[in-house]
Amino acid sequence: MPLRSDWSGDGCPIARGLDVLGDPWVLLILREAVAGAERYDEFKVRLEAADNIVSSRLRAMTEAGLLRKEPYTEGARPRHRYLLTRSGADTLPILHALARWAEQHTPSDAPRLRLGVLCRGCGARTSLSDSCDQCGVELSAENVTWIRPGSWEGLRVDLTGAR
Amino acid sequence: MPLRSDWSGDGCPIARGLDVLGDPWVLLILREAVAGAERYDEFKVRLEAADNIVSSRLRAMTEAGLLRKEPYTEGARPRHRYLLTRSGADTLPILHALARWAEQHTPSDAPRLRLGVLCRGCGARTSLSDSCDQCGVELSAENVTWIRPGSWEGLRVDLTGAR
Repeated sequence: MPLRSDWSGDGCPIARGLDVLGDPWVLLILREAVAGAERYDEFKVRLEAADNIVSSRLRAMTEAGLLRKEPYTEGARPRHRYLLTRSGADTLPILHALARWAEQHTPSDAPRLRLGVLCRGCGARTSLSDSCDQCGVELSAENVTWIRPGSWEGLRVDLTGAR
Repeated sequence: MPLRSDWSGDGCPIARGLDVLGDPWVLLILREAVAGAERYDEFKVRLEAADNIVSSRLRAMTEAGLLRKEPYTEGARPRHRYLLTRSGADTLPILHALARWAEQHTPSDAPRLRLGVLCRGCGARTSLSDSCDQCGVELSAENVTWIRPGSWEGLRVDLTGAR
């Protein structure tokens, strides 16, 4: 089921991509999943989003094959985790392209705070790219770690002077 | 003025990018601009979109610095063209990342129709990437031509057997 309807008919891959990923909440949930969020409450707290926003997106993203829902038990209660599928993990270059564009073209209150990327394949710091600057492997959530500073649980890192 | 409000406060570049580009119509208009559309009517016809959708996005995208509005005269009437700014042209890697993801992960009725990319810097065919496979230059709308077949005014090309 597409998350947005309906630009998919014309065969254009950009339109087909937007059909699934053209909702900004979907990309923000993918961002949090890449950064390690798995449980409903984690997505909700990190995004400061209403229940209906989070639950509808997690359901649609599971149906669209971006996430898979895995049961686990915590105490007596059965619960679910949402894990990135291969399809979901492969959205990383889209997130990187967005971040790279924004770092170049949108103002920020904190211009020195940049998203740091580590390639787990070779251990090197790489840029916001679609493949590792050092070893050339295609980047996905499966082989990348975003560097997390203490200040915000997630995506910012001070790379002042790091290059 | 952000096109969507408001994920920009937290300094995350992905959120800042979505603040401007998180509307799928904006990305579809950028797609058409990269493919050569300049006039209001061209965007409207190619996207098969209602007037209020096209006019509101063109206005907001001009305010956001993705497009610049340039007057010209056609007959006796003053008219406007919408041209990609550097910021708008630099969204190309986002469109490429979306298309690459969709070609890998979404079904298509026409799986052989793929988006072809020519680097005008070196003249080589390159992949849906953020830099040219051959000469390494960073790709933007300023140095890329999408290959257009006769079948659809825009983005599809049959690369069967081309690699």
